[in-house]
Amino acid sequence: MGKRYLLTNDDGIYAKGLNTLYRELSQDADCLVVAPEVEQSAVGHAITLFRPIMVRMARKNGSTIGYAVKGTPADCVKLGIRELSDRPIDLVVSGINLGANVGINVIYSGTVSAATEGIIMGVPSMAISLDARREGDFGFAARFARKLARLLVEEKPFEGMALNVNIPSLPEDEIKGVVVTKQGRARFMEDFDKRVDPRENTYYWLAGDTRFSDHEEEDSDACALNKGFITITPIYHDLTCHEAIDSLRNSTEAKDIFSNLLKK
Amino acid sequence: MGKRYLLTNDDGIYAKGLNTLYRELSQDADCLVVAPEVEQSAVGHAITLFRPIMVRMARKNGSTIGYAVKGTPADCVKLGIRELSDRPIDLVVSGINLGANVGINVIYSGTVSAATEGIIMGVPSMAISLDARREGDFGFAARFARKLARLLVEEKPFEGMALNVNIPSLPEDEIKGVVVTKQGRARFMEDFDKRVDPRENTYYWLAGDTRFSDHEEEDSDACALNKGFITITPIYHDLTCHEAIDSLRNSTEAKDIFSNLLKK
Repeated sequence: MGKRYLLTNDDGIYAKGLNTLYRELSQDADCLVVAPEVEQSAVGHAITLFRPIMVRMARKNGSTIGYAVKGTPADCVKLGIRELSDRPIDLVVSGINLGANVGINVIYSGTVSAATEGIIMGVPSMAISLDARREGDFGFAARFARKLARLLVEEKPFEGMALNVNIPSLPEDEIKGVVVTKQGRARFMEDFDKRVDPRENTYYWLAGDTRFSDHEEEDSDACALNKGFITITPIYHDLTCHEAIDSLRNSTEAKDIFSNLLKK
Repeated sequence: MGKRYLLTNDDGIYAKGLNTLYRELSQDADCLVVAPEVEQSAVGHAITLFRPIMVRMARKNGSTIGYAVKGTPADCVKLGIRELSDRPIDLVVSGINLGANVGINVIYSGTVSAATEGIIMGVPSMAISLDARREGDFGFAARFARKLARLLVEEKPFEGMALNVNIPSLPEDEIKGVVVTKQGRARFMEDFDKRVDPRENTYYWLAGDTRFSDHEEEDSDACALNKGFITITPIYHDLTCHEAIDSLRNSTEAKDIFSNLLKK
């Protein structure tokens, strides 16, 4: 029996990036699409606990394209693996997102959360994003995803981590190479736009643009992507600041601090 | 001028845990409450981009208690720091959550996302959760939070990281101590409960319970909390699997793998 991939995204089941991915990956594997009914950008790693999750078969031009879920990308991955597939999933692929997922902003990303959820569920997973603004040519990104997907399921070289992949929006022959990066510190510098509605209630719009932080490191995702490289960042579920752990544990000062906290 | 703390949570502005925290912390600082209008559990690190965020002054028994936000905990922190406070915030405190935030589940946590957002905005931050199910006595947790808060603003010992604090639900004299932990692998083992609505549409409820993984490490948050310790896990915004980076970068095999991906 051939491989089965689970495809999802955060832009919604009718998004062009997902469709291009499907057409490319289905040449290698049986692809099950389970994606949000509506756009879920910036949902972070949300899951739906307090309401039922509606699921329906979505159709386009008369053919079924997959399951449309009234939920988040992480819901889609959980449901796809646990309920909607009649056999084991070999790989979760999330994307292709329109817009890069790099830097601090990764923690707001629905696209990336789907890959993280896949890894939590024990399935090799990748998120793939194209660094384009309003429109992009997903063709090269989809072909790259297909090769990487084949590698992930055949050789399983990256156990226990998902891959967060970003593709520059450049003609194929201008792409500089593939580099392993870490999640950098690029972030949105937001402002709020304050308004008053016709009934005199106050509301705010989150506004702002991506900018890179001043202290961006050379080996960060945003930096390498900006230079024209495809970036691959290994990620998992862990937010621990590991560099801090040892110093906190070994410092006498820290021990005093903590024991003093329990004094009455 | 005294210190100003920003208080938030994910259980909503009228939650008892937040109220207890407010009563305790406002003995030391001017506390600005900016919290979700309705419960936001399991929202992950979501922010609201595609609709306006309504904000109103919330009242209880005739007095104002803070800003109620139709948004996520991360929205509350961003808004509180950028818009709703007329002076700089010295500390973000999120909680007190009813229920522990440990293990893999931390990435679904609205409580913890508020503290991570605070750190992203450059403000010392902590999340505080009580390991109780339906009801808990928040008194000790609030007093502990007050001492830790004072430490964070006066000595700033933990630059660049937020603290994810979990308090056992035990009588004060049975608490074993305070330990620095890492985010472990404890997780919900979910199932979906499949149902059909009166109009024959399919829907699912996410069901399940916390269990600890078989491979839980001794120095993990869930493990130490279970033994009766207060756990303090330093966290930040980074999902990178740092242990993987070096081996991926230095392995000849990995280099070959990546350069082959670009071959036509």
